[in-house]
Amino acid sequence: MSKKMPEIQLEEVRRFMEDCLKAVGAPESEAQAHADLLMHADTVGHYSHGLNRLEFYINDIRNGACEPNKTPEILKDVGATAWVDGHDALGATVGNFCMKLAIQKAKEFGVGWVAAKRCNHFGMAGYWALLAEREGLIGMAFTNTSPIMVPTRATQSALGTNPIGVAAPATGGDKLVVDMATTSVAMGKIECQIHKEEPLPPGWALGPDGKPTTDAKAAFTAGKLMPLGGEEKTSGYKGYALAAMVEVFTSGLSGSYMTHNIRGWETDSLQGPPNLGQCFAAINPEFFAPGFKDRVADCLNTWRNLEAADPSLPVLAPGDKEHKIGGSTLAKGTVNYPPNQVEAMNNLAKRIGTDHFSYLQQNS
Amino acid sequence: MSKKMPEIQLEEVRRFMEDCLKAVGAPESEAQAHADLLMHADTVGHYSHGLNRLEFYINDIRNGACEPNKTPEILKDVGATAWVDGHDALGATVGNFCMKLAIQKAKEFGVGWVAAKRCNHFGMAGYWALLAEREGLIGMAFTNTSPIMVPTRATQSALGTNPIGVAAPATGGDKLVVDMATTSVAMGKIECQIHKEEPLPPGWALGPDGKPTTDAKAAFTAGKLMPLGGEEKTSGYKGYALAAMVEVFTSGLSGSYMTHNIRGWETDSLQGPPNLGQCFAAINPEFFAPGFKDRVADCLNTWRNLEAADPSLPVLAPGDKEHKIGGSTLAKGTVNYPPNQVEAMNNLAKRIGTDHFSYLQQNS
Repeated sequence: MSKKMPEIQLEEVRRFMEDCLKAVGAPESEAQAHADLLMHADTVGHYSHGLNRLEFYINDIRNGACEPNKTPEILKDVGATAWVDGHDALGATVGNFCMKLAIQKAKEFGVGWVAAKRCNHFGMAGYWALLAEREGLIGMAFTNTSPIMVPTRATQSALGTNPIGVAAPATGGDKLVVDMATTSVAMGKIECQIHKEEPLPPGWALGPDGKPTTDAKAAFTAGKLMPLGGEEKTSGYKGYALAAMVEVFTSGLSGSYMTHNIRGWETDSLQGPPNLGQCFAAINPEFFAPGFKDRVADCLNTWRNLEAADPSLPVLAPGDKEHKIGGSTLAKGTVNYPPNQVEAMNNLAKRIGTDHFSYLQQNS
Repeated sequence: MSKKMPEIQLEEVRRFMEDCLKAVGAPESEAQAHADLLMHADTVGHYSHGLNRLEFYINDIRNGACEPNKTPEILKDVGATAWVDGHDALGATVGNFCMKLAIQKAKEFGVGWVAAKRCNHFGMAGYWALLAEREGLIGMAFTNTSPIMVPTRATQSALGTNPIGVAAPATGGDKLVVDMATTSVAMGKIECQIHKEEPLPPGWALGPDGKPTTDAKAAFTAGKLMPLGGEEKTSGYKGYALAAMVEVFTSGLSGSYMTHNIRGWETDSLQGPPNLGQCFAAINPEFFAPGFKDRVADCLNTWRNLEAADPSLPVLAPGDKEHKIGGSTLAKGTVNYPPNQVEAMNNLAKRIGTDHFSYLQQNS
């Protein structure tokens, strides 16, 4: 941790989030559920998706783009599937509603597949997949987002980061967690390069002219991310294809806006609800070959024990990094935020009439 | 097409494949089904997965690794799922059996999810997804393969190319087709660079020492492909995570070998059946929001009409390239193969007692 990062107890971060959400009209249960989602991100080290997003959600509620009192509605419920109207409720409200339905269906039919329209941002995709993993199931979650990915050969954004979340349980509480944007990187990583005053690696982003750039500031201004794989010669069309697959699962099945009709990532919530499409699925391994968790554990341990090219960088299984950070955050019981972020949050609290942060200490 | 490429009528290629497969014991129906699979690849321009693989399949049959007379068996059939033993039958036999089951279940329950163990190679993953697409469903197919992908930070292969096939129908017969290895590229592309005497782009492969290389020959000898995304700094861990997801769907659900236990891609079939794991799924859009095909068509056409960075390289929707090549192959009615490939095939025919190729002409 760098110096002068205020250290705040996890309970206090949660208290702050819940108070803010309740102050703008979220019922207690939904404020708690949404705080859970954001706390997960800050706990496992995905700071872009935690407290960092709170003001965005608060603004969406205050502008009427998000309606935290609404309850999702089942429009169709047949066999192993359901079609849901999220009614612009909080991301956590719709996520919990849909994933619980998918879990219930996976327990009955072996698979559950649920698609929802009129959704708001649901935070980390992996969080939702993990709800099913905790029930002994394979969980999957997908969402479309504001347009920020430029399809291969194009110059303008037309797809989102369209993330894929997948989690599977393994023996002894171990697990596999896939949680990835289908772009090479998220915008947060480009911001990091700006702060570090370092150029971008090739394959991350295009500049305002629609041509590949390594200039972090130009890339940030342009908001034109490249798909996973980067340029065409390094198979960027595969990341584009994955984003297209997510689009089919989300707007395709749910009837939400397609990414190219969603408000820009840089525009505020005055343009109305984003009407994102989301998809939640669960698969029950008990309906297949016995020994599923042992096989997943065998894979995870085989990969972890591979010889590393650099002995100081051991091979990780997908999800290990977040799991390790999560463990140490919980052991420490606190999280550190940049001073300007805490200040912004305290200003937010003042505006909406909630208590500012109480810090543990300043690391100075 | 380069000069001196023998041109062969599609019917003759099919005749040749079926005769060869029947000569080594495949029943007529299964020889036809497997020829269909290989013909699809050669028709859409994925020559690595067509006639090019025939000798590999014939060898597997002659060595007992593949048993073309066997019929797959349902071990569990509950709700929307099924667990299948492929009994080492031909890839097409198991693929048709499982995808038909998934389609039937998707029609009844909205989703069908089928996993099979004891499988042989099933050719192009997209071929299987398209079976469901033709029924108005979203189709998905996954397989593990011989170990050839080196997980991020490691020096040895432990995952396969573990491909993902997804197809979705759109209005007017249009469609989205995703058909991709989760490695940056398949070995075939490295062979192409050798033939062209060109170096590899970065992010494709490691050399025998487990370090990134641009030497095509060294990469071919090593057989150590990098995951989609390339090195860690360009998000190669995402391609690794996708391969891990495919592993969970295939060996995880089916109880087949996990990739790290599968015979090497360079070893012959004397080591016994490969016991691959495969997964076939179908989703019925009719159980969700009306207008699915229109939304998929809207996306496809939006992407195709984006401004291209290079006007001579228009933006394609996923699957367009294969669709276009497929159309012109069918219009032409013939396919051209390199002379040495035709010679090898005629030698094969001689060994197993079938008729050699009759060519239309030599383009010379």
